[in-house]
Amino acid sequence: MTRQAVSSYKQGLLETAQTLRQQIRAGEFTGSTSGLAPGLIQGNIVILPSDWAQDFLYFCQLNPVSCPLIAVSRPGEPLLPELGDGIDIRSDVPEYNLFIEGELTQTLTDISDLWNDQMVTFVLGCSFSFEEALQRAGLAVRNIDLGRNVSMFETSMPTTPSARFHGNTVVTMRPFSPADAIRAIQVTTRLPKAHGAPVHIGRPDLIGIDDLQAPHFGDSVPVHDDEIPVFWACGVTPQVAIRNAKPPVCITHVPGKMLVTDRLNDELAVL
Amino acid sequence: MTRQAVSSYKQGLLETAQTLRQQIRAGEFTGSTSGLAPGLIQGNIVILPSDWAQDFLYFCQLNPVSCPLIAVSRPGEPLLPELGDGIDIRSDVPEYNLFIEGELTQTLTDISDLWNDQMVTFVLGCSFSFEEALQRAGLAVRNIDLGRNVSMFETSMPTTPSARFHGNTVVTMRPFSPADAIRAIQVTTRLPKAHGAPVHIGRPDLIGIDDLQAPHFGDSVPVHDDEIPVFWACGVTPQVAIRNAKPPVCITHVPGKMLVTDRLNDELAVL
Repeated sequence: MTRQAVSSYKQGLLETAQTLRQQIRAGEFTGSTSGLAPGLIQGNIVILPSDWAQDFLYFCQLNPVSCPLIAVSRPGEPLLPELGDGIDIRSDVPEYNLFIEGELTQTLTDISDLWNDQMVTFVLGCSFSFEEALQRAGLAVRNIDLGRNVSMFETSMPTTPSARFHGNTVVTMRPFSPADAIRAIQVTTRLPKAHGAPVHIGRPDLIGIDDLQAPHFGDSVPVHDDEIPVFWACGVTPQVAIRNAKPPVCITHVPGKMLVTDRLNDELAVL
Repeated sequence: MTRQAVSSYKQGLLETAQTLRQQIRAGEFTGSTSGLAPGLIQGNIVILPSDWAQDFLYFCQLNPVSCPLIAVSRPGEPLLPELGDGIDIRSDVPEYNLFIEGELTQTLTDISDLWNDQMVTFVLGCSFSFEEALQRAGLAVRNIDLGRNVSMFETSMPTTPSARFHGNTVVTMRPFSPADAIRAIQVTTRLPKAHGAPVHIGRPDLIGIDDLQAPHFGDSVPVHDDEIPVFWACGVTPQVAIRNAKPPVCITHVPGKMLVTDRLNDELAVL
C-alpha cells in the first residue's frame, strides 16, 4: 500500500486549515478569512439548483478572470474531496448569503436545512491566494496589515452574459506605490486560477468607481498620495449576476468569508 | 563541415539588418531605427577609453535595468562578431554623439578618425526590442504608429554610482489604456536584457517629470485622456552619467539611432 508523501511544510498548513474548518463548522468562527491559513487556496462559493447550474457553468467559462472555476460538485453532493479531506459545503464556510429570486434575504452560518439533492456547488478561485504570493514577494497588502476586509466595487465593466446570468464585474482594490504595482502585476500573473493579473490600474473613474473610500462590499482601505489603486476581478461578480438572473434559490459565501481548502496556492501557479 | 541551420524566417531578418547596416555605413541612413528590422536586437552604444572602462562596467552591473549589458569589446577591437557578421562599431551606427570632458561637442555619422587602440565598446539592450514584442502581443506603440522617436525623460530616480559615473535614470514613456499597460508589463517582464518591466507607471510627478509633452530627448508623443503613461528605464541613462563623470572622450549613439544587430529579440527572452 503506497500513499503520496506530504511535506512537513504542507502537513502544518493542513492542520491549520482543518482546525479552522472545525471552528467554522462548530459556529465558533464567522469572520473574514483574509490572511488565515496562508499558503492554502480559499474559494468563492456559489450553490445553485441543478436546472440553473448549466447556465452558470457557461457563465464561468465565459468570464474566467472573475470566475476561475476550481471545483464543481455533482448534484446533491455536499462533499468536495478534491479540495480537502472531509470538507462539507453545508457547514464549512464562515457565513453564507441566501438569495431568493435574486434578493439577498438572509445570512446563515450553516445551510444544512436548505440542502437538497439538486444542489450543485461551484468553487471559484479567490484573491486571498494571491495576497499570500504578494506578501511572499515582500509587498505590503494594506487590507491585511490593517486587519480589514478588502475593498470591493461593482464596476461599469460588463461580464459576458450566459442566459439569465449577466451584470457588471466586481473588483477588489489594493493600493501600491507604482513600483510595487508593477511587481504585483508580475506576481499575480502567475496565478490565473486566483483571478490572475489585475484588470485595471490607476484610473478608477474609467471603470465607474467614483469614490475609492466607499466600497460596495468589504471595508474601506486608505490610498496614500504616492500610490495608485490596482484592481483585480473578484469572485463576488457572480453575486451581481445572480441578483440579475433571479434563480428561485442561490446560496453564496458572504464576501470575504471564504471556503478554506487543503490545496496549496502554489498548485494554482502556472510558472 | 557542419554549420548551424538558420531558419528562413531568421535569414530574411538577417538580410534586412545587413542591408540597413550597409546603408548606415555608406552614410545613406542617419535616422531613428525605431521600428526598423523588427525582430532583431538593437543596442545602445557607449565607447570609452580603457582606463575608464572598468568603472563604467561596474556602473552597468550596478544598474542592470537601465544598463543591460549585451556585449563588451576588447580595447581597440572595432568588430562585434557576437552581435553580427561584419559589424564595425566605427561606422554602423546611424549617428554618434561625441562627448569631450562630459560635454556633447559634436554629432558624427562615422567615428573612424577618432578610433584608437584603447577604445572599449559597450552595447546595452534597448527598448526597441520590447516594442516589437508589444506589437506582436497586439498592443499599439504610439511612437512607432506616429513615426516618431520615443519620448525620453531624465527622472529624479538616482542610479547607483560607480566611481565618477553617477546621475539620474533616463526613462522612455509610452501611453497605454490601463488594461494594455498591464499587458505591456507582462510582455516586457520576459525581456530583462531589453530593460525588462517598467520602472514606473501612472504618476510622472513622483519621478520628477513635470510635463509629459516636453521630453528631454526624442519626440513628444500624445497621451490620451483615458490612458496612463508607462515608463521604462532607458539606455540613454549612461549619457547622463558620462556628462557627470567627464571622461576625456566618450562616444555614444544619438538617442533613438541604435546599432542594429543580427541577433533575435527572442534570444533575450527569459520565458
